[in-house]
Amino acid sequence: MSAITSLTNHQVRLASRPVGLPTRDNWSFTTEPVAEPGPGGVLVKTLSLSLDPAMRGWMNEGKSYIPPVEIGAVMRAGGVGKVIASNNAAFAVGDYVNAGLDVQEYCLIPEANIKRSGMFKIDPRMGLTSWLNVLGMPGMTGYFGLMDVGQPKAGETVVVSGAAGAVGQTVGQIAKLKGCRVVGIAGGKAKCDWVVKELGFDACIDYKAGDVKAGLKEHCPKGVDIYFDNVGGDILDAVLTRITRGARIIICGAISQYNNTTPVKGPANYLSLLVNRARMEGIVVFDYADRYPVAIAEMAGYLKDGKMKSKEDVVEGLENFPETLLKLFNGENFGKLVLQVAKD
Amino acid sequence: MSAITSLTNHQVRLASRPVGLPTRDNWSFTTEPVAEPGPGGVLVKTLSLSLDPAMRGWMNEGKSYIPPVEIGAVMRAGGVGKVIASNNAAFAVGDYVNAGLDVQEYCLIPEANIKRSGMFKIDPRMGLTSWLNVLGMPGMTGYFGLMDVGQPKAGETVVVSGAAGAVGQTVGQIAKLKGCRVVGIAGGKAKCDWVVKELGFDACIDYKAGDVKAGLKEHCPKGVDIYFDNVGGDILDAVLTRITRGARIIICGAISQYNNTTPVKGPANYLSLLVNRARMEGIVVFDYADRYPVAIAEMAGYLKDGKMKSKEDVVEGLENFPETLLKLFNGENFGKLVLQVAKD
Repeated sequence: MSAITSLTNHQVRLASRPVGLPTRDNWSFTTEPVAEPGPGGVLVKTLSLSLDPAMRGWMNEGKSYIPPVEIGAVMRAGGVGKVIASNNAAFAVGDYVNAGLDVQEYCLIPEANIKRSGMFKIDPRMGLTSWLNVLGMPGMTGYFGLMDVGQPKAGETVVVSGAAGAVGQTVGQIAKLKGCRVVGIAGGKAKCDWVVKELGFDACIDYKAGDVKAGLKEHCPKGVDIYFDNVGGDILDAVLTRITRGARIIICGAISQYNNTTPVKGPANYLSLLVNRARMEGIVVFDYADRYPVAIAEMAGYLKDGKMKSKEDVVEGLENFPETLLKLFNGENFGKLVLQVAKD
Repeated sequence: MSAITSLTNHQVRLASRPVGLPTRDNWSFTTEPVAEPGPGGVLVKTLSLSLDPAMRGWMNEGKSYIPPVEIGAVMRAGGVGKVIASNNAAFAVGDYVNAGLDVQEYCLIPEANIKRSGMFKIDPRMGLTSWLNVLGMPGMTGYFGLMDVGQPKAGETVVVSGAAGAVGQTVGQIAKLKGCRVVGIAGGKAKCDWVVKELGFDACIDYKAGDVKAGLKEHCPKGVDIYFDNVGGDILDAVLTRITRGARIIICGAISQYNNTTPVKGPANYLSLLVNRARMEGIVVFDYADRYPVAIAEMAGYLKDGKMKSKEDVVEGLENFPETLLKLFNGENFGKLVLQVAKD
């Protein structure tokens, strides 16, 4: 028995589809022996997993931009890990990689699935969890959503909701670097203070403390040219009342609506798009995969030069996955939410 | 006393702001003597007025793309008329013009207001009311909304609501001429038959007769690439479930919502924009004023060559303005709604 096949892989599987917020009953905890990779395959030890609001959507049945997670399958998740066995010339034992590893301790990736897993080598000197944050999917989402869909011009006012989250912090910091006025929307004084003092946003509206419309009026005196929306609901409606002529609204997500047991609340003020000749457009980050390397290089440069910060909210322990995921929906996470599965 | 100053001008004024559908109480009927134009001014006899869903918005208080009609003011309307007195070298007595004439029999346009009134000479041989329809604001709205915002490509599927209305008929006919598959949505068999048999749409869904979603599934087997929305509400939501990757939704109006006494129903399915990387964008025709002549020339060519039809629903009598306007909101009008104020 090799060292590898003596290992046990703990996994978290989707046991049933949640109605509203997922509960512990929606998950099952399984163990499997770890297998050696076949020809061309790679075995990765999971170090940290990315926890994202989009996961809630993957748990639902029905068509979306990717297929749902099947009942009984290991929950889908991206993560960073270390190659511990490899029959593939592109990956050596000891390499750090970013890939679709799923919520488990070990991920065996057959040769045929390497491309689909999005696996690529990462530089651990940038900080492993940065690769799940500004250098990972949230960073890419923020970068391409803002730059390609939003098309910011220096001097414009950019508003971003979920400002202390993974995507929000990236969007705001890039917008500042591009010469925009940046106003965040976040829940609670601690997050708002951090976004302004640490990340350099011009202002941040605490939606838990007061009226978002009044905050927008105060902090966006020339109106909102670009709104990067991660939350939907009432905040989207509030921003729609303050957009400028030709404004761009990037629809990245709708955290406020993902756990609804009632129908989604559509933006009642959408006719503001007509009055203001504005547009609302959706973004899915995978469409930009060919250009990730360029964006990663730009962002890594900012990180090295101290022009950008990458804050992670790290929770330890695979077994804590169910409760940790909920932090995304009750506004508890502060920075990119990461589940640390093993220490390097 | 000249022939002109012996004339009486009957007018319809906004007496109060309606709640829900406008009633006769929201209007007042006044008479005024007609005055000679001053230096550089023009006096126009109203022949026909354009009745448009947008009028309902102008009756509300509050910011929109143009200021509201003030209480006590003659109701705003565009129309076609004949110059009966002129001190302006650009307009001679006997010229036919298109201008903001308002709901009255005679419109005195001082030199300072000529530009703002949008007055231009028209060729009566094209049919006077065509200038309120495919050669007028509805036609321009359809043309620039479809071409500039929608950017149709041959072979794409275009859906248009309010298909038998002034904007809808233009959009559908242009889309056919550009090589698209065109599916209308209209109320009642007569309108749907007309749109298909007379205008050459590929299909038309009768929203009064059945399920719009099922109709879209049947008639748009490849999904909806472009949706030109004149109605909002449940129909917008139904179309959102059938859009293709990269679809464009042109928000031109929301007839279903204009007389709401409850808040506007936002599109609950707006997250389809995210899943499909689609966009929803507003259009206001005035932004394209510089390019009207080019579009008018193209459309006039289609009319002359018999490639396009222009159907008007003409009601006679200034005094019938209040009831006639309501035809736009109960789905009664069939083609461009025109109020004939005087015969030529």
